[in-house]
Amino acid sequence: MGAEDLSMTLTRRDFSRLSAMAALAGALPKIGAQAADKENAGRKLRWCIVGLGRISMDHFMPAVELSKTGKITALVSGHREKAEKQAAMYNVPSPSIYSYDNYDEIRQNKEIDAVYIALPNSMHAEYTIRAAKAGKHVLCEKPMATSVADCKAMVEACHKARVKLMIAYRCQYNPLHLKAIELIRSGAIGQVQAIESAFGFPIQAGEWRLNRKMAGGGPLMDVGIYSLNACRYLTGEEPGEIKANSSTIDHDGRFDEVEENDGWTMKFPSGILASCTTTYGGDTGGGGFFKVHGSKGWLAMEPAFPYQGKHLTAHIAGGQDIDEPEPDKDPWDFVRQADHLAECVWSNQEPKTPGEEGLRDIQLMSQIYLAAGLRPL
Amino acid sequence: MGAEDLSMTLTRRDFSRLSAMAALAGALPKIGAQAADKENAGRKLRWCIVGLGRISMDHFMPAVELSKTGKITALVSGHREKAEKQAAMYNVPSPSIYSYDNYDEIRQNKEIDAVYIALPNSMHAEYTIRAAKAGKHVLCEKPMATSVADCKAMVEACHKARVKLMIAYRCQYNPLHLKAIELIRSGAIGQVQAIESAFGFPIQAGEWRLNRKMAGGGPLMDVGIYSLNACRYLTGEEPGEIKANSSTIDHDGRFDEVEENDGWTMKFPSGILASCTTTYGGDTGGGGFFKVHGSKGWLAMEPAFPYQGKHLTAHIAGGQDIDEPEPDKDPWDFVRQADHLAECVWSNQEPKTPGEEGLRDIQLMSQIYLAAGLRPL
Repeated sequence: MGAEDLSMTLTRRDFSRLSAMAALAGALPKIGAQAADKENAGRKLRWCIVGLGRISMDHFMPAVELSKTGKITALVSGHREKAEKQAAMYNVPSPSIYSYDNYDEIRQNKEIDAVYIALPNSMHAEYTIRAAKAGKHVLCEKPMATSVADCKAMVEACHKARVKLMIAYRCQYNPLHLKAIELIRSGAIGQVQAIESAFGFPIQAGEWRLNRKMAGGGPLMDVGIYSLNACRYLTGEEPGEIKANSSTIDHDGRFDEVEENDGWTMKFPSGILASCTTTYGGDTGGGGFFKVHGSKGWLAMEPAFPYQGKHLTAHIAGGQDIDEPEPDKDPWDFVRQADHLAECVWSNQEPKTPGEEGLRDIQLMSQIYLAAGLRPL
Repeated sequence: MGAEDLSMTLTRRDFSRLSAMAALAGALPKIGAQAADKENAGRKLRWCIVGLGRISMDHFMPAVELSKTGKITALVSGHREKAEKQAAMYNVPSPSIYSYDNYDEIRQNKEIDAVYIALPNSMHAEYTIRAAKAGKHVLCEKPMATSVADCKAMVEACHKARVKLMIAYRCQYNPLHLKAIELIRSGAIGQVQAIESAFGFPIQAGEWRLNRKMAGGGPLMDVGIYSLNACRYLTGEEPGEIKANSSTIDHDGRFDEVEENDGWTMKFPSGILASCTTTYGGDTGGGGFFKVHGSKGWLAMEPAFPYQGKHLTAHIAGGQDIDEPEPDKDPWDFVRQADHLAECVWSNQEPKTPGEEGLRDIQLMSQIYLAAGLRPL
C-alpha cells in the first residue's frame, strides 16, 4: 500500500476542476512574473509529484497548472488507478507514472526537473535523498523530516548532488505574511515585545499523523510548526530559552502514540517573548492566529495559517489602522512556491526556505519536546 | 506624601460627573437586586475609601453611588485638599476624612462597615490588617499583596477579626466572563484543550508600578494576573506544571527594578495547556484577550479585561455562534463588587473571591517568577 493511501481520505474529483481553475486563473492577478522574464519566457520547470494526497491533488497540482513557470510531467504513487486518473487530467504520459518501487528511475526521465514531496513526514528524507541522487531538485513539504539527523542527511545529499532543496513553508510566500513581516521590520509597531500564536484542530482517528513512526510527533509537527516558524520570521530571530508542556486529555485511541497538546514559551535574543499552543484536540477556528505586541502598536493575523481567508489587522500608533483580508483564493501560495523554486533553479540561487530552514524548526521542535519531557526528534 | 500620590496622575473632576452618573444610572438596568431584598431594602453598606487614585475616584466611588447597597461615608488620603473635594462630592463629613497616620481611628467610626483598599500593592497587607483590627470588612484590590507571607497574614487577620476579606477580581463579577465560564462548564465547546491569553500596555515612566518595593514585580503583578486568573476560572482547575521566561528589552530607566515582559505556559491537572504573555512594553490592544479551544468549538474574549467594551465570541459545533459585545458601561463591574461584599456581610457568607483566591494567584505568580529565573514573591 502506497504511503499516500494512509495520508488522506480522498474526495472524488474530475476534469471539470481544471476548467474551474482556468477560470479562476483568469480572474486573479498573474504572478510569477519575475520568473517569466525575457530569458525564461515560456520556460517550464517540469514537476514530478511524489504522493497523491489532498495537498498534492487539491492544492499543489492545480497550482502548477496555474503557474507560468511549471508543468506536471510525472507522478509517483502506490495507487496505479488513482495515478492514471491524475495523469489523464494533467496530460502526463503513462510511462511517467512511477511507483515507490521504481521511483529511482526518474533519474532517466529527462522530462523531470524537480520533485514535489508530499508524503508522510517520515518518508520525506528517503524520497528527498533518492530525488537528489536522481539529479532532481526538491520541494519538500513541512515538517522537513522526523529527526534532526534526517534533515542533515537531506541537506547534505542535495548539496552533494547540486540540486536545490526547498521546504514548503507556504506562509513565507504569502503576501499578507510578507506584509506583516515588512510592517514589523519597518518599525510600524515599534519594538516587538511579545507574541502569542496557536494552531490546531480536532483530529480524526485513523490519520497517519497519529502514527508516531510516520509523523514523528503530534500537533507540533503538523500545525504547531506554523506558529513556531511564524515567531521566527516575524521576529527575524532564533529563539534561545524554550520552556514547554505537553498533554494528552483524550484517551480514545487517537493519542496512543503522539501527544494531543503542546504549549511552549520562547525567549528570543532581543528579549521578545512568544507563547504558543498547538492541539490535535481543540478547535482553533480553522486557521489559528498570531498576535504581535509592539511598543507603538500591535499586529495580528487571524486566521493566520489556512490555505485561504487569512486576515491581517494592525494598529499603528499615529498611523492608519490596517484591516486587510486576503484577496487570494487557494492555491496561490502554492503557485508562488512553484514559481520560487523555478526561479531558484534557473538563476542558480538558494531558495528562501532551504533545507537549513526546515532543519532549524526540527531542531527547535526537538527542544520543545525535550523541554516538555517528551522524546526529542 | 500619601501613597496614592505616587499611584496615578489625576484628572480634574467635579460635581458634574455625579450628575452624569445619575443619568447613566437611570439608563442602565438596576442590579444588586438580590442584596436589596425585603430584609435589606434601603440598607447601605457604609464604605471607607482607602487611597484616592484613579481606580477609586473614576471607578469604585461612582460605582458605590450607583449601587443600591452602598454609600461612601469616609475617606483615607494623604492629601487633605484632594480628600476634602471628594468628601464634598459624596457628602462625607469632615471628621470622616482620615490620613494614613490616624487611619486606625476608623475603629471608632460607627458609620464605617467596610474599607476599599486601592493603594500600591505593597501597602495592601498593612492596610487590610489594620482595617481588620478596626473591625471593618475589606475589599482589597488585586494583586492581593507583594508576598505570599503578606497574603497569609491578611487572611489570618481578617479571620481572627471575623471580618470579610474580598479581593477585587472584577472580571469574576462580569456577566460576559460569567457567560464564558458557564458555556465552558455546560460543555458547549466540548473538552477544553488549550488556552492563550495576553494583557499588557506600554507603561509610562514614573509609575509606582515600576517600583519593585511598591509593586512586587512587573506586568505579571498588574495585568498578567488577569490572564492567570482567567485561565483558572475558565478551566475551574489549578495549574500544576508552570514554565516561564522573562525579559527586559528597553533600557530606558523604566525597567531598572521590575521586568518588562513575562511569558509562561501552564499545565492543568486535566491536561489543559495555557500559554500566556504579559508586557509593560507592548500594546495588547487596550484590553488583552483570551482564547479557549475545545473539542467541539472555541470561545474567545477580545478585548477581555478592559473596564468596558469586552466582547465575547464563540463557535459551537452544531450550535449557534455567539457574538456578544458588553452592553455595560463602566463602572458596573465595580457596582457588582460593592453589591457582592454587601450581600456577603449581610448574609454572613464568604465572598466568591476571598483572600484565599488572591493568595493562590500570588503563589502562582511566585512560581512563574521562579520558573523564569526571577526572585519569587
